[in-house]
Amino acid sequence: MNRVGIIGHGITPFSKDDQKIETVLLNSAKKLFKSNPEINRKDVDAVLVSTNNNSKYLSPVLSEMAGIQPNTSHTIESLCNSGTNSIVSAYSYIASGLADMVLVSGAERYDSPGQILEWDNSRGEYKHPIFWASIFAKSYKRKYGISDEQLAVVSVKNHKQAKKNPNALSNKTYSIEDVLNSKKLTDDLRLLDCSRPCTGSASIILGSEEKVNKLSEDPVWITGIGQKTISAGFVKNISFSSMESTKLAGQAALKMADKSIENIDVAEVHDAFSVCEPMALESLGFSKDGQGMHMLKELHETNNFKINPRGGLIGTGHPLGATGIAQTIEITQQLQSNAGNRQTKNPQAGLVHNMSAAATSSTVLILEK
Amino acid sequence: MNRVGIIGHGITPFSKDDQKIETVLLNSAKKLFKSNPEINRKDVDAVLVSTNNNSKYLSPVLSEMAGIQPNTSHTIESLCNSGTNSIVSAYSYIASGLADMVLVSGAERYDSPGQILEWDNSRGEYKHPIFWASIFAKSYKRKYGISDEQLAVVSVKNHKQAKKNPNALSNKTYSIEDVLNSKKLTDDLRLLDCSRPCTGSASIILGSEEKVNKLSEDPVWITGIGQKTISAGFVKNISFSSMESTKLAGQAALKMADKSIENIDVAEVHDAFSVCEPMALESLGFSKDGQGMHMLKELHETNNFKINPRGGLIGTGHPLGATGIAQTIEITQQLQSNAGNRQTKNPQAGLVHNMSAAATSSTVLILEK
Repeated sequence: MNRVGIIGHGITPFSKDDQKIETVLLNSAKKLFKSNPEINRKDVDAVLVSTNNNSKYLSPVLSEMAGIQPNTSHTIESLCNSGTNSIVSAYSYIASGLADMVLVSGAERYDSPGQILEWDNSRGEYKHPIFWASIFAKSYKRKYGISDEQLAVVSVKNHKQAKKNPNALSNKTYSIEDVLNSKKLTDDLRLLDCSRPCTGSASIILGSEEKVNKLSEDPVWITGIGQKTISAGFVKNISFSSMESTKLAGQAALKMADKSIENIDVAEVHDAFSVCEPMALESLGFSKDGQGMHMLKELHETNNFKINPRGGLIGTGHPLGATGIAQTIEITQQLQSNAGNRQTKNPQAGLVHNMSAAATSSTVLILEK
Repeated sequence: MNRVGIIGHGITPFSKDDQKIETVLLNSAKKLFKSNPEINRKDVDAVLVSTNNNSKYLSPVLSEMAGIQPNTSHTIESLCNSGTNSIVSAYSYIASGLADMVLVSGAERYDSPGQILEWDNSRGEYKHPIFWASIFAKSYKRKYGISDEQLAVVSVKNHKQAKKNPNALSNKTYSIEDVLNSKKLTDDLRLLDCSRPCTGSASIILGSEEKVNKLSEDPVWITGIGQKTISAGFVKNISFSSMESTKLAGQAALKMADKSIENIDVAEVHDAFSVCEPMALESLGFSKDGQGMHMLKELHETNNFKINPRGGLIGTGHPLGATGIAQTIEITQQLQSNAGNRQTKNPQAGLVHNMSAAATSSTVLILEK
């Protein structure tokens, strides 16, 4: 299999802007080409767009606006997990030899139709994601004896880290009390436990070994890929206090990269809601079951940005189609020691975890210098 | 690169049914598994859904309903060209080694939102595809001195061929006069010059060389792939009487397969409107420029089903996301001498041509026994 790496990237601030999806998409692609002038647009073999937006033919539209005439062009959707699905597709195009360079651009508007899965009637009329997240939170807290106060650390930590991220939606710091006093949305979740929908875009360009070595001064390689789909409906989950698809995707990605979880120095995990962060850490093997909050508390108290350095979905905002790409850009920057004052200490290997719809499907990527 | 072939397929009749997209999708996947009982659903590594429907997360939904837990699952959209884009993605997943077996399911409802590209303002308020097709028809007829009567052969031929296709939307035969007397929709196109939106689904399962040799008694291989995106907007087309993206995609596909157009025994080409068929034949090199109608007339008069044996989009109907997959199934059946009374004489190599939005993008596949 051909080696696949990252050549360049571009990202917009995450906001509540009311722009057309085509404009949002173009913004991060323009940034990418501006900060990577060595990339010849004629050499872009494929353009993959990641979004839940209902507008059609967005890849040829983006290509026309960006001055690209790719061979392959299409949109990829899998709810919150669209971005890393697109990166995996780009990887397969390059590894198969069908393409040498692939642009992956993700974008979403704050009013994305991907926020609710209409098909899933498993929680009756309670279709908004906060209801599955509440079931997760109640189940997780009960099983491991975690209090609301303990769980609030996730939000406090991620908002703190987001303050160091110039593209984050939030730039406020919050205390445990602020989280506990924020609007109670369900029995188990408050406003500050939730990531917020927003408008944003992120673009990344992947290449074959030859292209990466030619065009990147500081190559980062995708060495591990794991994906798993358990179901689409929430109640098909085996457990409400762990993420089965994440566990399987994580194991597959580590195996492909020939790494163990102890080798991972920095990670982006999918904290759509606060409870998802300790659950993901446990399912990925970063900590034992029920110990995720202990790990996160220690990281927070020692100001260690190892988990979700850019501020997670809670601090950065969650423009669905852009999220997986933004996570991958963050790990790339971390590995390149280019993450400003979010920088973790000399990481050699990083992990991206992206999931959809109560972790009914997950993608895990391993990136290395 | 690993060899990639076709293991099995399933297709539904194309109709005006008012079913949910999830049901439509499942119907052809069920048929596929029913007629290929040797396929173990546990071995399906990826499920790619091709559609323009706005429902989200359709690949995990289909997977859950069909009893599959794939690794990779997402939806692919590129208007009319979604189906072959999905097949090319499946190819890349297998050729790269990320997957050994990939299910590609395409479906559309008669009221698909992919029928109009809202973004393209290049024809002012005239956004319906019939307006670009009319400009093509006027330009093509003027350049090559083709009459409405001559062009009507496309519709007569394709309806005749569709009568031999039990899944086709149309089962009527029409004369040249019927076409000329059908409702005039624009200066240059009548009702019977147009393919009709409909509800339908088509599924195909691709595999690695090992899987194909194990599971198929009569293997068909994808030996050539070509894709090209020129633009998204109609007026960016270089010519209104030929298809530039089709020309480039066709050349690339033939080169990859190490074939010339003379080696192609049977072909599905994208006749969204009658004028598209001779234009596609010329751009693919089946005939010289301006000679496409002469070739089609001769085929029609000799009852040779070489071009669009299943009846084309005009005779079969055009459920956008399913079309490219249905075309590929037809060529597979032709190569397997399994096309009933549509069968062409002992074909060894076939071609699939699919395109979107006035041929601003095209995909060409070469299939061989």
